[in-house]
Amino acid sequence: MARVTPISGFPEWSPAQRIVEQQVLDTVRRVFELHGFASIETRAVETVEQLLRKGEIDKEVYGVRRLAGDEADAADAALALHFDLTVPFARYVLENAGKLQFPFRRYQIQKVWRGERPQEGRFREFLQADIDVVDRDELPFHYDVEMPLVMAEVFSELRSLGFPPVTIQVNNRKLAEGFYRGLGLDDPAAVLRCVDKLDKIGPDGVTQLLMSTAGADADQAKACLALAEVRSDDTSFVERVRSLGVSHPLLDQGLSELAAVVGEAASRMPGAVVADLRIARGLDYYTGTVYETLMTGYEQFGSVSSGGRYDSLASDGKVSYPGVGISFGVTRALSLLFARGLTASRSVPTCVLVALNTGDDRRRGEDVATALRARGIATQVSPSAAKFGRQIRFADRRGIPFVWFLGADGASDSVKDIRSGEQVDAVASEWMPPAEDLHPRVITPNIAE
Amino acid sequence: MARVTPISGFPEWSPAQRIVEQQVLDTVRRVFELHGFASIETRAVETVEQLLRKGEIDKEVYGVRRLAGDEADAADAALALHFDLTVPFARYVLENAGKLQFPFRRYQIQKVWRGERPQEGRFREFLQADIDVVDRDELPFHYDVEMPLVMAEVFSELRSLGFPPVTIQVNNRKLAEGFYRGLGLDDPAAVLRCVDKLDKIGPDGVTQLLMSTAGADADQAKACLALAEVRSDDTSFVERVRSLGVSHPLLDQGLSELAAVVGEAASRMPGAVVADLRIARGLDYYTGTVYETLMTGYEQFGSVSSGGRYDSLASDGKVSYPGVGISFGVTRALSLLFARGLTASRSVPTCVLVALNTGDDRRRGEDVATALRARGIATQVSPSAAKFGRQIRFADRRGIPFVWFLGADGASDSVKDIRSGEQVDAVASEWMPPAEDLHPRVITPNIAE
Repeated sequence: MARVTPISGFPEWSPAQRIVEQQVLDTVRRVFELHGFASIETRAVETVEQLLRKGEIDKEVYGVRRLAGDEADAADAALALHFDLTVPFARYVLENAGKLQFPFRRYQIQKVWRGERPQEGRFREFLQADIDVVDRDELPFHYDVEMPLVMAEVFSELRSLGFPPVTIQVNNRKLAEGFYRGLGLDDPAAVLRCVDKLDKIGPDGVTQLLMSTAGADADQAKACLALAEVRSDDTSFVERVRSLGVSHPLLDQGLSELAAVVGEAASRMPGAVVADLRIARGLDYYTGTVYETLMTGYEQFGSVSSGGRYDSLASDGKVSYPGVGISFGVTRALSLLFARGLTASRSVPTCVLVALNTGDDRRRGEDVATALRARGIATQVSPSAAKFGRQIRFADRRGIPFVWFLGADGASDSVKDIRSGEQVDAVASEWMPPAEDLHPRVITPNIAE
Repeated sequence: MARVTPISGFPEWSPAQRIVEQQVLDTVRRVFELHGFASIETRAVETVEQLLRKGEIDKEVYGVRRLAGDEADAADAALALHFDLTVPFARYVLENAGKLQFPFRRYQIQKVWRGERPQEGRFREFLQADIDVVDRDELPFHYDVEMPLVMAEVFSELRSLGFPPVTIQVNNRKLAEGFYRGLGLDDPAAVLRCVDKLDKIGPDGVTQLLMSTAGADADQAKACLALAEVRSDDTSFVERVRSLGVSHPLLDQGLSELAAVVGEAASRMPGAVVADLRIARGLDYYTGTVYETLMTGYEQFGSVSSGGRYDSLASDGKVSYPGVGISFGVTRALSLLFARGLTASRSVPTCVLVALNTGDDRRRGEDVATALRARGIATQVSPSAAKFGRQIRFADRRGIPFVWFLGADGASDSVKDIRSGEQVDAVASEWMPPAEDLHPRVITPNIAE
């Protein structure tokens, strides 16, 4: 084969890392389903028209066309790979509105593609796990409270798979927009784009940018930065914002919504959610509540779970379908933890290797394997009747904990724990490994930095 | 949203169909893992150069490039979506050869893309579930026997999810090539391409095609058709081929290999595998054993599980990595069964809906839901404190079997089976639904045609 170098930004995990990813995804799916979210998958492609309708990430979109495209192709709509799961979901809702039951709760775990410059934690192909709720015409506000609490439960469950604690930060677009408008700044989107760069360019940089691109004077810039500094894990942020002396009806609405999310979350899952008035979210389709999530010790790599309320993403002209959702960036989070040593106890699902005495043993070996598999024990038969030392090495290199030996001349079979060396007589229809050895386990080094 | 029409060839399932697909994939994964196959996923894109190296399906390949690609992009290798999982797997093996343990057994469940003309059972985006084994330099032949038996076990398990019986058909490229060469036909690939059209154009059409494109005379064409008619579920095919009077060393080797697969399979899983000498497989990379699988009653839609031995797909010039594998076309099989009514007992994972008496009940409702979820019962809380009739209808429309009522004024909570109308007092920390209602079930209409 000619070219086998990796392609930058398109990560591929080792078999052991993939086992960790599978256990993470099993956990995510279990929590989502316990909360009644139904799974859907959408096609990988959308029309280019659809994808570029919202947001400012046209440069990041990958177009797709047949290499030998003909005139028939040219007449079709241009296609591109989806860059998130929210825009495809909104399209799916519109396309299937007559068949779906509203409010519609769905989860969606799929790859997405963005042609951004790759760096640690940032990829061109990556896996997202989203939950969203959409309704027809109006969506009750209590779903804005529910989304981060479900995601907090996911992260709580992931602690046993080596994940660090997280903080979910909440803000509200109306609050920010009302504040900026109350200050006299009439292009809130421009202001948000500046404030969004606070981590990258610092307060002085943001001040400069606000003055040069968002029409702010020095006092207005100072007020915007003061707002961005407000943070609390209870509803005390309301008073702090009030004390900045700005008033606007949209600001009132935003404060009241954000207080509802933070207050209710603090009562149901203390410490899980904080109000943080600097977070903005890059995508234009959010209209109210917005979420970001930082893993403790990994703050510099940005949010691993983001989302928000979008009241006007999906509309067929007559009916609109407001929604709220939150997305877990599985690949980003795992890549950071893999780089720090998170892995699995073995590189295969196999619990038992059946060793062969001679090549003629294969059929007997397969019978033992069948009996073990029938009771849920993942088993494979040795590739050849090599010397036992070599067959044990075969198991050891993969982390397979047990080797099964076929009894010769009427003797009983036996099974050896190759870690301890302990070997006991065993019958394939009865023997069980210790529960902790049945499946690969996630090995959690000291992940906190 | 501007354009929400489906895109031909890119199927999307309803939430109920997706539940069936998930249960099918859970079954596939369980069987693969019990046999010791490790999961990997490869990136969706390969270099165009890599993809077009083998096979004749360049017209089917979808190219991928950033819509706003710049000079840096132009200098990179051109990318395209993978059209199967075998070519990417071969590349993964070469790229990671130093880190993998051989023989390497992996399974891979991912979408693939082909720009073919869509028709029933044939899509442009579809899900494949593959198992393969590769080794360094040489791969023991017993894996050629193992692959179809693992897949037969998958299909056997899928019977309880509404799948019809299947027949796995096996042939051998060496057998066919040796036979054609023994006949004096020197372009076996051209002959295979003709014989592969037998279902579409019939024996007379194939005879014409053999004479016009593969250099055959009438007797040679007749012999090729006679070979294609041979079929048996035991090793008796060997005598029938011998009786056609052709001899060639490659024919001998092919007959011996195919007899080994069919004989061993007949002894281990009687009836699962048959020798069928007409099957060819379109892809050029197969070098020996080939597999195809027909679902009983759905023969006209073609194979739902195909594969074979490839001795020279992966090589770095010094070391070669022969492999053998088989792929389950999940989307093709499911699309056929969905069209005939296969579905799930409900469209959501939810088992219990907690009804609300008043809006102030939400917190109490969430506490009940939390207690039920803690014991694995998928639960959601009613979106609003509407009239009970409307809340029950909410559950009914989604197929949620149970509605939970919060006791008012100190009365006990109760739970109602909305199918039977039976209502009993219940405590959230103790109540369990019947096991068959805990998760959605697959509803199997009479799928056989």
